[in-house]
Amino acid sequence: MDLTIDYMQQAIVAARGVEGKTMPNPPVGAAIVGSGKIVGLGATQIPGQDHAEIVALKQAGKASLGAEMYVTLEPCGSYGRTPPCVDAIISAGISRLHVAVVDPNPNENGKGINKLKEAGIEVLMWQTQEFVLEAKSLMESYAKHIVTGDPFITLKYAMSVDGKIATSTGKSKWISGEQSRKAVHRMRYVSGAVIVGIETVLADNPELTARTENEENLDMQPLRVVIDTNGRIPIDAKLVNDGGSTLIACAEMDPAKQKTLESKGIIIEKLPEDDNGINLMSLIGILRDKGIVSILIEGGSRIAGSMIDLRVVDKFVVFIAPIVIGGSNSLGPISGSGIDNVSDALKFKSSQFKKYGDDIAIIGYP
Amino acid sequence: MDLTIDYMQQAIVAARGVEGKTMPNPPVGAAIVGSGKIVGLGATQIPGQDHAEIVALKQAGKASLGAEMYVTLEPCGSYGRTPPCVDAIISAGISRLHVAVVDPNPNENGKGINKLKEAGIEVLMWQTQEFVLEAKSLMESYAKHIVTGDPFITLKYAMSVDGKIATSTGKSKWISGEQSRKAVHRMRYVSGAVIVGIETVLADNPELTARTENEENLDMQPLRVVIDTNGRIPIDAKLVNDGGSTLIACAEMDPAKQKTLESKGIIIEKLPEDDNGINLMSLIGILRDKGIVSILIEGGSRIAGSMIDLRVVDKFVVFIAPIVIGGSNSLGPISGSGIDNVSDALKFKSSQFKKYGDDIAIIGYP
Repeated sequence: MDLTIDYMQQAIVAARGVEGKTMPNPPVGAAIVGSGKIVGLGATQIPGQDHAEIVALKQAGKASLGAEMYVTLEPCGSYGRTPPCVDAIISAGISRLHVAVVDPNPNENGKGINKLKEAGIEVLMWQTQEFVLEAKSLMESYAKHIVTGDPFITLKYAMSVDGKIATSTGKSKWISGEQSRKAVHRMRYVSGAVIVGIETVLADNPELTARTENEENLDMQPLRVVIDTNGRIPIDAKLVNDGGSTLIACAEMDPAKQKTLESKGIIIEKLPEDDNGINLMSLIGILRDKGIVSILIEGGSRIAGSMIDLRVVDKFVVFIAPIVIGGSNSLGPISGSGIDNVSDALKFKSSQFKKYGDDIAIIGYP
Repeated sequence: MDLTIDYMQQAIVAARGVEGKTMPNPPVGAAIVGSGKIVGLGATQIPGQDHAEIVALKQAGKASLGAEMYVTLEPCGSYGRTPPCVDAIISAGISRLHVAVVDPNPNENGKGINKLKEAGIEVLMWQTQEFVLEAKSLMESYAKHIVTGDPFITLKYAMSVDGKIATSTGKSKWISGEQSRKAVHRMRYVSGAVIVGIETVLADNPELTARTENEENLDMQPLRVVIDTNGRIPIDAKLVNDGGSTLIACAEMDPAKQKTLESKGIIIEKLPEDDNGINLMSLIGILRDKGIVSILIEGGSRIAGSMIDLRVVDKFVVFIAPIVIGGSNSLGPISGSGIDNVSDALKFKSSQFKKYGDDIAIIGYP
């Protein structure tokens, strides 16, 4: 066993542990190794508190002198809400730094690494592709947001091997297996917002919370966004009454209904309408203004289709269950206008596959 | 490296080399190992000629004495078109036999193994799951046919990650990549017949031959079957004029047209009609009567749907390309009546995944 691989993996595991809790900062992990063992392990704290490197350095104390550090992201070289990590790394006497990913933040982007090199610390970029990809995926929302200011948009759906998300009678429970559904709860947990169309609310009355296997709510919950052009959401919908944060994006709504919903703490956003319902770019803009870094689109078919037609999806997570639904009238995952020629299809620049029980997930980046 | 694994793999490679050429016999491979190396390697010859074991024994000659044999299928213990292989194995002095799969033929099914054991030969069932599955998949058509008399039916399609086999304008070239298309030509090569609907012929004018990468026809070609209820096939279709074997299954056809087609060597089968076009069970019966052991259904959506509704598909091969097509009117792979509740969906008892370039294939057995 190559132990050096394990050290970066440890840093990634530490980062994974705080995923979603550090926004708008990325979840970062750091491991300090001295005399062949981990003497300090840290992950990013909530904004304004210690970065991963500092947590690890504090834990290692004097053992940092001459030790090696493994970080999932290039340490910051400038003052943000906290002092630069590179200064702390230099002061602590770290001899060598292993970095998985360079900071995409244009204000950083190699500056921290250069400062460390100038201070005589050897800096090595991590070469094990598997861990580099994992470290990158951990900070993909941050990477987009820090460069563009826009939220990172993930489209997720579960379909049968014949590409159906519901039967011809509209039934969709449960196409994917337990392991996949567990992964979806994790995706909600790390997302700033989840979006569904009103049809999904009317058909399924979903909670859209991140839950444990025992159906208990986890400690972080996304803002739930319903695209409801004509204000049709039922007053007794779970999303309205369970105390979580919900935003209704509509073009129109009965004033009395709006008042009732607002009295229950629901946020109502009136948005301009276009041919396909409310203008989705306006909605994304509103979520951006609320500081939302990552959005999970949970369907249905129509919202997904509009998002595809707008080409705003950054990541696809497609769960495929080993079942066949069939039927000319069964619903596919993505409607919208579509394309005329296969050569105009949205192509994945890269994709990965993961097994979730009997299901397989295709994770694709257009 | 565990060399014993390699020996069974060698036997499988030998069997793979004759796949499709041995029907109605299964493609079998045999390797004889003496003094740590392969002294005989054989595969099933055409019906009436030597089985794999005999080919390998002839090649090994005296080196068989005390050697070990690796076979993908239990050797036959009774007279068929050739004398029983077990007698030859015993006479040759093989000391130990490794077997991947027991013969599903009810007339064999362990009898050969018992006879060998009685003769003092040690018989070991192969334990490496990967190779056992591969040996089984090599003889899955034979296994169904020998037990039921019916052909083994494989449904194959290529779809985008959003479950579309064509754009809203009906375009389907090329959804899957080169590696997948190469695999399809291999599938045709080892199939007794391929079936398409008339809509596919009208839209694509396909050849449906098994071809090399340079578009040359391979040495074996399937019978091409067109489901054409109302006899609409164009007289100038490639399938009619390229000299290959083609069968048109119809309920009705203009007599003059029928005469012209028959003069070109096309087989016309008149079949009873039901609500969804010609009765597919009758067609399968006709192919069975022609001694066809394996059928590949190549689409379109309607034929696939009917086959699913009839629940006659034995194997699914679904190529998924890393592209998104979208569009409410884009075609999915399987139409038909479908099901009302997800719990009634056709479930895969087992499935595997294979990479073909950027595509992934799901291979499922309901």
